[in-house]
Amino acid sequence: MSESAFHYRGEDLFVEDASLASLADSLGTPLYVYSAKAIRANLEAYEAALANYPHLVAYSVKAASNLAVLSLIQKAGGGADIVSGGELFRALKAGFDPRKIVFSGVGKSAQEMAEALKAGILMFNVESAPELMALSAVAKELGLVAPVAFRVNPDVDPQTHPYIATGFRESKFGAPMEESFELYLKAKADPNLSVVGLDCHIGSQLTSASPIKAAAERLAALLGRLKAAGIELKCLDVGGGLGIDYKGEKPPTPLEWVAAFVPVLKEFSGLTLILEPGRSIVGPAGALVVRVLYDKATPYKRFVIVDGAMNDLIRPSLYGAHHAIKPVRDLKRPQAQVDVVGPVCESGDFLAQGRLMPLAEPGELLAVLGAGAYGFSMSSNYNSRPRAAEALVEGSAFRVVRARETLEDLIRGETV
Amino acid sequence: MSESAFHYRGEDLFVEDASLASLADSLGTPLYVYSAKAIRANLEAYEAALANYPHLVAYSVKAASNLAVLSLIQKAGGGADIVSGGELFRALKAGFDPRKIVFSGVGKSAQEMAEALKAGILMFNVESAPELMALSAVAKELGLVAPVAFRVNPDVDPQTHPYIATGFRESKFGAPMEESFELYLKAKADPNLSVVGLDCHIGSQLTSASPIKAAAERLAALLGRLKAAGIELKCLDVGGGLGIDYKGEKPPTPLEWVAAFVPVLKEFSGLTLILEPGRSIVGPAGALVVRVLYDKATPYKRFVIVDGAMNDLIRPSLYGAHHAIKPVRDLKRPQAQVDVVGPVCESGDFLAQGRLMPLAEPGELLAVLGAGAYGFSMSSNYNSRPRAAEALVEGSAFRVVRARETLEDLIRGETV
Repeated sequence: MSESAFHYRGEDLFVEDASLASLADSLGTPLYVYSAKAIRANLEAYEAALANYPHLVAYSVKAASNLAVLSLIQKAGGGADIVSGGELFRALKAGFDPRKIVFSGVGKSAQEMAEALKAGILMFNVESAPELMALSAVAKELGLVAPVAFRVNPDVDPQTHPYIATGFRESKFGAPMEESFELYLKAKADPNLSVVGLDCHIGSQLTSASPIKAAAERLAALLGRLKAAGIELKCLDVGGGLGIDYKGEKPPTPLEWVAAFVPVLKEFSGLTLILEPGRSIVGPAGALVVRVLYDKATPYKRFVIVDGAMNDLIRPSLYGAHHAIKPVRDLKRPQAQVDVVGPVCESGDFLAQGRLMPLAEPGELLAVLGAGAYGFSMSSNYNSRPRAAEALVEGSAFRVVRARETLEDLIRGETV
Repeated sequence: MSESAFHYRGEDLFVEDASLASLADSLGTPLYVYSAKAIRANLEAYEAALANYPHLVAYSVKAASNLAVLSLIQKAGGGADIVSGGELFRALKAGFDPRKIVFSGVGKSAQEMAEALKAGILMFNVESAPELMALSAVAKELGLVAPVAFRVNPDVDPQTHPYIATGFRESKFGAPMEESFELYLKAKADPNLSVVGLDCHIGSQLTSASPIKAAAERLAALLGRLKAAGIELKCLDVGGGLGIDYKGEKPPTPLEWVAAFVPVLKEFSGLTLILEPGRSIVGPAGALVVRVLYDKATPYKRFVIVDGAMNDLIRPSLYGAHHAIKPVRDLKRPQAQVDVVGPVCESGDFLAQGRLMPLAEPGELLAVLGAGAYGFSMSSNYNSRPRAAEALVEGSAFRVVRARETLEDLIRGETV
């Protein structure tokens, strides 16, 4: 139930008080558009749900990493969940207080650890014993103490796409529950480490709260065992993963989400509760606006060929994801079953397949909705296509927050 | 049977006369490495196979688009098969004679058409009636005559991954055979167009020549019909698609490939025969070199976590593709069944799954082979990871042909 800011006024599709047609006409297509109001509202829903607990809403930077989006979240009180040195760099540039940054991920390099340590982040979500040893060595060399949480793998079925399910025991993420207790003891004994938290993240695009409740029950059991062993933590990070409505899904609200697992953890209400939402903050707040190039009818299929492609939005191709596609001008017109495809030279390049929708004509604009998360951040230059521009809208005002790439940008750093 | 230049000398993996360890030590990882010699040899195999016919080997730029790779192919006599304005820009920068450039793709924009027309390319492979009209209008406005070929869809089963199969009648590519004859008549009557060729491309990573032979039979029938109608062509473009050995496949050699369809076309031996190979030129000539970060064993699975990820090479995740992975130092060591995964935060981030291989230790290097095609060209900045460097090797010499991206590169064009 995240907030979307896309709505029709008469025949015209607006984001907040700006018409998408006017945005596309002045900034060109393909174009990513984000609503500042929707992003703030979606963050606020988490803040409200957590108001009665010490908490931190650490936005998952990988969902949409644009500096302007990050800055907006930072100013609204959010923290940052980062997974690389690049995301640390972005988060610091966007002005996040390092004490609101958590560093997740299975493959942190020594250099990334050192940079995050020097920046003074809140904690490292450590995912394995070898990583713990590496972090200890980096901290020792720098003469600093690394704040650590362990990401445990609670072995619950998140009921989502296999590529974004992370809480199975066969996943590369986290430490098995039975191993993590020993890791805590090891870390406690290490003068280069400071044990501050417990973390899990079971997957993404979850549409039911029952897996997170099941995970919380396992976290509570571990917290109890740690407490009995004299290990007191400051932070409990239950990860992100709350889904959005791509195709009629009815995910819980942040309030319902939090209500599902907080009672399980009531014994540990003194801990700072950390959430790492990404998709549910920016997904519904963003759209990819494309222009129709050709209406290609064959005896076998009808194709709406648009100027946005798999290099701009890979989710349909990579995950079989569904994105609603709406005409920017909602005229009365016949419907047809079409594939919406881009100019990239492979059959895997599609934005929708077999979709019944109003038939748009060449030159018209379409909005691919729910594209704010894992849209631009996964985009590439495949087929030597410059990456799209990104615009942030606030009321009727808009500004380019990432310039459209040029042909010269394509070859930057190359030598013949 | 394309040429690979990767081989062991003693315990060390070399590309030509350069050890991958020395390359990685001086240029860092993840690193794309290409062999100039292998690229030239693979191109030469096509040139030799076509030596008895007027021909053009138009390299498919999207497979590996680096300017140095393009320049090498251009200097060796090859042409370029492009699919975007960005690839036109690259091909011209690399010095290709415009008369050796063919422009394919279902979604050419008016601007891209104009740029290619002004450059004087050999021909546009037109894929639909609406595109033909658009091209005619662009040519008229510029006062130029556009050389066209029609890409027909021969409706044959290329027996490859659905995402890279393009010759089915339900594909977005090409015009149906029965429609194309009318398009020729239409184009012939248009003073802004000059009919010069016939084109098809049925798919990629083909490991048998029988589909291309079947396609050639259909092309021959159409050529006969066109000739009878007084439409004489100059070029016959049979596309690319010849596969490589990723996992023990035994694709035909270029000689066998050409021998399979040339007899079918003997009546039209005066036509310039165009081929559009990509993967078979650069695929085996390139590798992605990565460094092991962690050896993570859980009771359920063993993970070799490396510093290259799905943002560097998306083929395993997107197509379920298999790439051989070899230790750069081939020491005697135990084998284990492992997943080779990167640091990107999703379960879809893997380079190999359930692979039995020598167990590499943290700090060691691995070479992901067959990564020259659709490797770097599909790479992204997902998880805010700077893109890898690319190096071109010739003998024992190597040079960086694309600099590793920096953190500053990640935020270029962005405003907070």
